[in-house]
Amino acid sequence: MDVEQFRKAGYAAIDKICDYYINLNSKRVVSNVQPGYLAPLLPSAPPEKGEDFDAIAADYDRVIMPGLTHWQHPSFFAYYPTAASFEGILGDLYANYASNPGFNWSCSPASTELEVIVMDWAAQLLGLSSAFHNSVGLGGGVLQTTASESALVATVAARERFRAANPDSAIEDLIIYVTTETHSLGLKAGRVLGLQVRTLPVRTEDQFALRGSVLQEALEEDKAAGRHPFILMATVGSTSSGAIDNLPEINAILQDHPEIWLHVDAAWAGIALCCPEYRELLHLDAINSGADSFCTNFTSTLWVRDRKSLTSALDITPPFLRTAHGDAGTVIDYRNWHLALGRRFRSLKVWFVLRGFGVQGFQKHIRQAIELNQHFNTLLADSDILELVTPPSLALTVFRVVPSKHSDVDVAALNTLNAEFHSRLTARTDLVLTQTVLNGIFCVRLAVGAQRTTETHIRSAFDAINEEARAALAVWNLPARA
Amino acid sequence: MDVEQFRKAGYAAIDKICDYYINLNSKRVVSNVQPGYLAPLLPSAPPEKGEDFDAIAADYDRVIMPGLTHWQHPSFFAYYPTAASFEGILGDLYANYASNPGFNWSCSPASTELEVIVMDWAAQLLGLSSAFHNSVGLGGGVLQTTASESALVATVAARERFRAANPDSAIEDLIIYVTTETHSLGLKAGRVLGLQVRTLPVRTEDQFALRGSVLQEALEEDKAAGRHPFILMATVGSTSSGAIDNLPEINAILQDHPEIWLHVDAAWAGIALCCPEYRELLHLDAINSGADSFCTNFTSTLWVRDRKSLTSALDITPPFLRTAHGDAGTVIDYRNWHLALGRRFRSLKVWFVLRGFGVQGFQKHIRQAIELNQHFNTLLADSDILELVTPPSLALTVFRVVPSKHSDVDVAALNTLNAEFHSRLTARTDLVLTQTVLNGIFCVRLAVGAQRTTETHIRSAFDAINEEARAALAVWNLPARA
Repeated sequence: MDVEQFRKAGYAAIDKICDYYINLNSKRVVSNVQPGYLAPLLPSAPPEKGEDFDAIAADYDRVIMPGLTHWQHPSFFAYYPTAASFEGILGDLYANYASNPGFNWSCSPASTELEVIVMDWAAQLLGLSSAFHNSVGLGGGVLQTTASESALVATVAARERFRAANPDSAIEDLIIYVTTETHSLGLKAGRVLGLQVRTLPVRTEDQFALRGSVLQEALEEDKAAGRHPFILMATVGSTSSGAIDNLPEINAILQDHPEIWLHVDAAWAGIALCCPEYRELLHLDAINSGADSFCTNFTSTLWVRDRKSLTSALDITPPFLRTAHGDAGTVIDYRNWHLALGRRFRSLKVWFVLRGFGVQGFQKHIRQAIELNQHFNTLLADSDILELVTPPSLALTVFRVVPSKHSDVDVAALNTLNAEFHSRLTARTDLVLTQTVLNGIFCVRLAVGAQRTTETHIRSAFDAINEEARAALAVWNLPARA
Repeated sequence: MDVEQFRKAGYAAIDKICDYYINLNSKRVVSNVQPGYLAPLLPSAPPEKGEDFDAIAADYDRVIMPGLTHWQHPSFFAYYPTAASFEGILGDLYANYASNPGFNWSCSPASTELEVIVMDWAAQLLGLSSAFHNSVGLGGGVLQTTASESALVATVAARERFRAANPDSAIEDLIIYVTTETHSLGLKAGRVLGLQVRTLPVRTEDQFALRGSVLQEALEEDKAAGRHPFILMATVGSTSSGAIDNLPEINAILQDHPEIWLHVDAAWAGIALCCPEYRELLHLDAINSGADSFCTNFTSTLWVRDRKSLTSALDITPPFLRTAHGDAGTVIDYRNWHLALGRRFRSLKVWFVLRGFGVQGFQKHIRQAIELNQHFNTLLADSDILELVTPPSLALTVFRVVPSKHSDVDVAALNTLNAEFHSRLTARTDLVLTQTVLNGIFCVRLAVGAQRTTETHIRSAFDAINEEARAALAVWNLPARA
């Protein structure tokens, strides 16, 4: 493909993206292809000779598009919002074209320096204290690939800090603390690192938040048994239900255990800190005073209080990666702040999005999603067959269907009912919601956050939910009547 | 930014990319900014209100472009080639616009199914046996984020396979085997996982390849001492010098140690397997008969012989990630094949590039880079002050400057000379080469592989190298004469 062929294909791609967003509302949300749909539509081997891009682009429409679930669709309420923006698409496009891995400062100075700056911008957007700012030079921020990698990196740094202070402790005795509501990234970090994980219980009446007393009890038990908890993965806004661990209580207890690293995973909720009115709810003060690391999925941002904790755990510098500035310590070499060597120029995306939206644009997006969720809750409040399982958290609601009089129905029967309900919802292609289980209760989640969602979509979603709830109840009642 | 603003900004970005590649040859290769250049050019906080994209794009040209080193430049000979292609840029653009994380099959079926198919295409391109093909169902291929992640994933799978078979072995006794020439990803995997690493020696006369006898000796020693080597990271084409470990000898020895996982890191050289004439040199038969995992940096591709070794090490499925097809085992859920949960739709890029170039396009690119390197070696052979440190490997040459008669000069003095030589090269902005150290010898690397490099660039590079070599010799001779 020569430059002019690329120009033509590039313009066509931009037009395709415009058409996609213009028509998004009229598309089904969920793909209805069956497993294995694609293989019969494509050759089983790559072509011998290069093909014309028009043919490739046409195949994208013909075979890929039918297999996409549209995460940007206004009626996408599953998992968590991903909110792709035009600014973000442009940021990635700009990052790709000069394509230069920024593992060292010297590889492409702009890549590192922009990241150093926009991570401080993002820290300010969220209200993180200067302890986490790159410009101060003790802590700092870095883009990881995912929240899972952030948790893994924090765990490695915590483990090495602990082992440096306690060289005689056996790896087998180290324990990662999570709760039953911590994202699977906690258990996965344990699996990857081959470390024990202790899952602390949370209670429905605490809205699934970890309480200090539970932590205290576990610590006493483990320490008495010679085990070494070395990191607590606390959550501010769990994926499952939006639970917010009680960080003030946790901080108070961890004061007596300075060897324990506090990682705050706010992958989903952290970005809401851009709105001052949510900072108390999300324990910003406690994050600023107590967290060793903080992560949110605004492009997988991770901040740490002590950058040396990362570099002393992760720095491996072979001769072919040495540079004059790196040796002199005058620059950040970000490869020593994460797992891999290679990295993309993702700070461009952060820069474009922060500038394109401004602080007010972020606040508007967050407030709009939360208001839409409140609207859903207003509709829910009038229903006699839908009930909240826990109070709504920001833009997330967890609910279930119940018979209109259900004081005598047991949890197992209700779970059967709700599995039927969710299975009916899943069969629809005009909206998508995912399920979860909270302390044994099967429930359904509505996560608002796509950029184009309006009250009309919420109303339609409620109607669809109501319809499937009634249908599930009808089927579920049948055997009882027989 | 609305759709029409995006269309305008998108077209402009495509034009900018076209201009970039049209003018690339006339740019300096290396950025000459100083550490900290960027902060004074940007505000210290994000803007309150969103900005117009024209201003952002203008700032990209004004403040970012001067800080870029141009990895796609025809005179970029440092590190390793990254060879961005127009097809690849389009692939990433298409992947971004519908932006859907493909962690489960259900998230967006096309994302998983295309990856399953193009990994088999890529396996065929490289000649990997059907044991590694997804369509066969035992092994399979997956896109990782980097070769470092591939090595980490392989190590975790190997460790869990070993521990399942040897539940009483202590983590402290496990050992990762690498060589002194293994990429830093080997040592880093050890650091991340908190495991011992043993670095096996290689010899200059073996062209820095690991030999079977060295492996055998280490195994006997470690096993006698109760230690457990559980993975060997072998290299086919080291970053430093293009060394190719002796896989036939390694396979012969590992036959008696089936508990040891053989990971073949061919991050740099693996793609050359697309040319049948290099398959013997790169030990394709031994890879096909003995490797448990194989990685090359054609978009960070990883293949494994036993997919269950990945999923049993990495599968964590919380309720909110369960799906009907996943539970039934009828689909691949790629999140269980790597470290993170989230993943991008990168198989589109692989698909676009494989189709745009075809098998013959890949072969042409590889052959051209190797021919250019041979041309460099022809020039080098005529020089009386430049010598090879090891024979050239594919498109990589490792050399150093020497006085024309140097039989009596010791290594330390020559290293001083070559550090001066490299430092002079580094001060230039019209080309870039990086250094390495091979068994104590400081040397300079020329890595060919940018898409637009021609014989003219090689000739100019040789002239620049020759000039700086003479200048370094002149300075170095001075104190000796005094």
